[in-house]
Amino acid sequence: MPTLPNKTLETFPNPHIDATYEIQHTCPEYTAVCPVTGQPDFGEIRIRYVPGPRCVELKSLKLYLWSFRDEGHFFEDVTNLILKDLVAAVEPVRAEVVGTFNVRGGITTVVTARTGDWP
Amino acid sequence: MPTLPNKTLETFPNPHIDATYEIQHTCPEYTAVCPVTGQPDFGEIRIRYVPGPRCVELKSLKLYLWSFRDEGHFFEDVTNLILKDLVAAVEPVRAEVVGTFNVRGGITTVVTARTGDWP
Amino acid sequence: MPTLPNKTLETFPNPHIDATYEIQHTCPEYTAVCPVTGQPDFGEIRIRYVPGPRCVELKSLKLYLWSFRDEGHFFEDVTNLILKDLVAAVEPVRAEVVGTFNVRGGITTVVTARTGDWP
Amino acid sequence: MPTLPNKTLETFPNPHIDATYEIQHTCPEYTAVCPVTGQPDFGEIRIRYVPGPRCVELKSLKLYLWSFRDEGHFFEDVTNLILKDLVAAVEPVRAEVVGTFNVRGGITTVVTARTGDWP
Amino acid sequence: MPTLPNKTLETFPNPHIDATYEIQHTCPEYTAVCPVTGQPDFGEIRIRYVPGPRCVELKSLKLYLWSFRDEGHFFEDVTNLILKDLVAAVEPVRAEVVGTFNVRGGITTVVTARTGDWP
Amino acid sequence: MPTLPNKTLETFPNPHIDATYEIQHTCPEYTAVCPVTGQPDFGEIRIRYVPGPRCVELKSLKLYLWSFRDEGHFFEDVTNLILKDLVAAVEPVRAEVVGTFNVRGGITTVVTARTGDWP
Amino acid sequence: MPTLPNKTLETFPNPHIDATYEIQHTCPEYTAVCPVTGQPDFGEIRIRYVPGPRCVELKSLKLYLWSFRDEGHFFEDVTNLILKDLVAAVEPVRAEVVGTFNVRGGITTVVTARTGDWP
Amino acid sequence: MPTLPNKTLETFPNPHIDATYEIQHTCPEYTAVCPVTGQPDFGEIRIRYVPGPRCVELKSLKLYLWSFRDEGHFFEDVTNLILKDLVAAVEPVRAEVVGTFNVRGGITTVVTARTGDWP
Amino acid sequence: MPTLPNKTLETFPNPHIDATYEIQHTCPEYTAVCPVTGQPDFGEIRIRYVPGPRCVELKSLKLYLWSFRDEGHFFEDVTNLILKDLVAAVEPVRAEVVGTFNVRGGITTVVTARTGDWP
Amino acid sequence: MPTLPNKTLETFPNPHIDATYEIQHTCPEYTAVCPVTGQPDFGEIRIRYVPGPRCVELKSLKLYLWSFRDEGHFFEDVTNLILKDLVAAVEPVRAEVVGTFNVRGGITTVVTARTGDWP
Repeated sequence: MPTLPNKTLETFPNPHIDATYEIQHTCPEYTAVCPVTGQPDFGEIRIRYVPGPRCVELKSLKLYLWSFRDEGHFFEDVTNLILKDLVAAVEPVRAEVVGTFNVRGGITTVVTARTGDWP
Repeated sequence: MPTLPNKTLETFPNPHIDATYEIQHTCPEYTAVCPVTGQPDFGEIRIRYVPGPRCVELKSLKLYLWSFRDEGHFFEDVTNLILKDLVAAVEPVRAEVVGTFNVRGGITTVVTARTGDWP
Repeated sequence: MPTLPNKTLETFPNPHIDATYEIQHTCPEYTAVCPVTGQPDFGEIRIRYVPGPRCVELKSLKLYLWSFRDEGHFFEDVTNLILKDLVAAVEPVRAEVVGTFNVRGGITTVVTARTGDWP
Repeated sequence: MPTLPNKTLETFPNPHIDATYEIQHTCPEYTAVCPVTGQPDFGEIRIRYVPGPRCVELKSLKLYLWSFRDEGHFFEDVTNLILKDLVAAVEPVRAEVVGTFNVRGGITTVVTARTGDWP
Repeated sequence: MPTLPNKTLETFPNPHIDATYEIQHTCPEYTAVCPVTGQPDFGEIRIRYVPGPRCVELKSLKLYLWSFRDEGHFFEDVTNLILKDLVAAVEPVRAEVVGTFNVRGGITTVVTARTGDWP
Repeated sequence: MPTLPNKTLETFPNPHIDATYEIQHTCPEYTAVCPVTGQPDFGEIRIRYVPGPRCVELKSLKLYLWSFRDEGHFFEDVTNLILKDLVAAVEPVRAEVVGTFNVRGGITTVVTARTGDWP
Repeated sequence: MPTLPNKTLETFPNPHIDATYEIQHTCPEYTAVCPVTGQPDFGEIRIRYVPGPRCVELKSLKLYLWSFRDEGHFFEDVTNLILKDLVAAVEPVRAEVVGTFNVRGGITTVVTARTGDWP
Repeated sequence: MPTLPNKTLETFPNPHIDATYEIQHTCPEYTAVCPVTGQPDFGEIRIRYVPGPRCVELKSLKLYLWSFRDEGHFFEDVTNLILKDLVAAVEPVRAEVVGTFNVRGGITTVVTARTGDWP
Repeated sequence: MPTLPNKTLETFPNPHIDATYEIQHTCPEYTAVCPVTGQPDFGEIRIRYVPGPRCVELKSLKLYLWSFRDEGHFFEDVTNLILKDLVAAVEPVRAEVVGTFNVRGGITTVVTARTGDWP
Repeated sequence: MPTLPNKTLETFPNPHIDATYEIQHTCPEYTAVCPVTGQPDFGEIRIRYVPGPRCVELKSLKLYLWSFRDEGHFFEDVTNLILKDLVAAVEPVRAEVVGTFNVRGGITTVVTARTGDWP
């Protein structure tokens, strides 16, 4: 039976809580629906964070990103929304989400949202 | 009111019926659902044809490719299906559809379907 | 009835006024007329800004960039002009406009205009 | 005084009438207006031909391609139109025009028109 | 319980037996052991075929390629071996296997094995 | 007789103990087994360090990276593990390990672990 | 009558004297003669500056760079010379000239000269 | 004392007169003067030939290409001229010269001249 | 004790004598000495062949290519020489050697030598 | 008579002693012998420095890099050695040498040695 999309980001305990390191996940398969025109949008979501107590479990991240497929989202909004969900789930030292959205009306859009201090 | 996805490929009369020329449309925003796992698949559809009496109208092609979004399709099948729909709609001298599908299980798949003689 | 080019940059309220994030729009379809020779110029306009109270609406940005098509503009001038119009419209925390203009006389020109402090 | 756009393709006598050779001109600065939406389209025009009695003069080719700027043209039509104007002007042994048009509705279009036998 | 590597290439009936089309699978995750030195080799296996009565099932292809991991194979031999297994499993109209193997001793090796007539 | 994989990172005395310089080794041939699914993972390991009293011997590094082939490792864990083994072996001024792991579930993962201050 | 090469860099008043912005001109068509061997050298000159009271006029820059064609210049010297001429002509806030010179004796050379503080 | 440019293509006897092989020389440092405007043109000359009794000596080819530096040449003409000089010098089985000339008026030009039958 | 360079190309019996397949080896580490100037030349040697009774053993190919290091060779000559040695060693159905040699005097040279019929 | 390799880096007085500028030389034709296996190594040497009283003469740099051809050198050692020879010869404000060495045992190595403060 197929796995269903799911808004819950599952986590596991940071296996190197004493170390400062960075995790990056890149998913080129983001799609949602434009809230104005109802037409599909496409893009790539890149997540970077320095883990605190927990890390994101990879399969649940896939299902989470899949959950936007039938929802309406603006580019600026969804990028910040993913960041907030990530922060709530893993309480990172710092985190960044970059959404790179396919050309619409001849214009490509990139939204970069961050928490914490980045060097 | 948003445009809805639609299986009808609309056409217009070939404006240069006396000439032999080729038209290529490339859409990197194909998505459907895997019939086995229920999970989304992504890919690029490239269509090439030498027009006969009619040409595909570009906006209806967009809506047509959008119509696969909630349907279950195997890679081998959908590429041939698009070719058959194209041939029925425009009766081309020759036509080709190439589906390039994103990596699944570490493997990328490309399906190339053709009618007629290609040099 | 087609949309007409328009100098007004429409805006919407920043949906994440509490967050510091960056928005980038890239349009490779800029064209205007050289004020000296009367011949067309071409280039790419890249806009980056950290939004304050408002964000630029994407469709109005397209029409705004389209509005330069029949006007005469020098490279140095138009890049600063777009920055000033953007700043007036959205009052950003900081903003940057980069114009990359096609080769003329064997020379490519890039103009970068900024407001505020950039890291 | 600026040069004006002009539909006339000026020519000069083939300086190597006894030889079989090929000339290719690539212009990434094509723009016209969509006849349906009234909005600007952009693309690259690539011309290849084996000259017969005459060759295209380069500056007149620039003015000729410039002349489409304020006209309404479909992709399929304009590519064939440029080929026909070229053939009328230089009577080539064989000729090809390839129009590569920027993404509209998530789809990129390439039209290839030819006369004569190409290997 | 994890899936185990498996030498059996499972198949499904060609869904478009009346059409002539081509399927390509590219797997950059091939690894085996050098029969001489016992050290691991790495490479990419690219399979192309025009299907006859049956097609290769994608998941079983993944397990099949995984099955070489602990075996000793020369580059020339394994490429032909994969082709023979493929031909036995699907009886294709024609088939090709290209193995591209990572640099050893400063030299990169590519082996291309084919059955049938390729244009 | 083939060399066997080995967990010991052999070292040699830093030949320029008075200088501050950086050494980088990039190995695109990392493979291990997923502890959850039992299926093979692939990736590239990039090691950078400013040497202290000792440097890593290149052949022993090859055998060390080879030793993960039959072991189960999570991406986040193995990157930190390699860093710790490196630090124990050579006591570097500072060190960094970057693991870039192949796409799984449509998502590519990069883990970056560091010790010391990096400019 | 053709324009002649000319050592004078003509300027126009900075149209945005109140703004801090950057102008970059890239010319891949630099050529001069080697003072030692008398043979031609080739390279690319990239100029960046933050304008003060004046900007460089583009056509005069083309003629200026053309003026080196029959002169003998060493790579290190000509890059600094162009910077000094630029500074004298426009009195920039800061300026940079980068000369990238084609391979001679198997070695490519890049010279970077700057005035003022660059971030 | 510097070597002077020279129109003579020096040759040496084909060391493998019994074999059919191809030689290609690529020089990205072609420059001449436009016969109309007097301004410098730049381009790349690529020569391919199957040698007959003689081969071109590499240093004399460099001096020969250098000899165009102060001469006025149209793109179409100079490409054929180089081919004719090559053919006279080495009497090749077949030969090809491709001139790729830098953008002028927004248009890049490639001229391909050939003798003999090319597969 | 280190292996010494060696002119002997060792072979092993073709393991798939009944099949028609192609083997390609690419070595970017060719170096020899210019017979005229005594200075080192560098290049890449690419070998392709359809094996007959025997295949080239990879380690002996490395030593063979190494053997040119201290010898004087012209580009045209050495490419044909390698082809002849290969043909003598393995008696291939057909074979090709492509030598791509680094820029000398601003000119890059590629020599392609073949035996037999290539499609 | 051919020029011989030579360990002496010849210099000339800095022609712009009053300016702060940077010189970079990149040579992709480094080769030496592995002190352990006796087999040839290959790599690229990139030198950057801010000149003090003297600059490196380009031809002597070529001969200097050529002088390593028959010597045995470890990657870590030779990069620092070249830096020390450069510093002794030209007394630079600051200098950097980056050696990028070809893959050995599946691993690519880059060594970066510096003197002075780099921004």
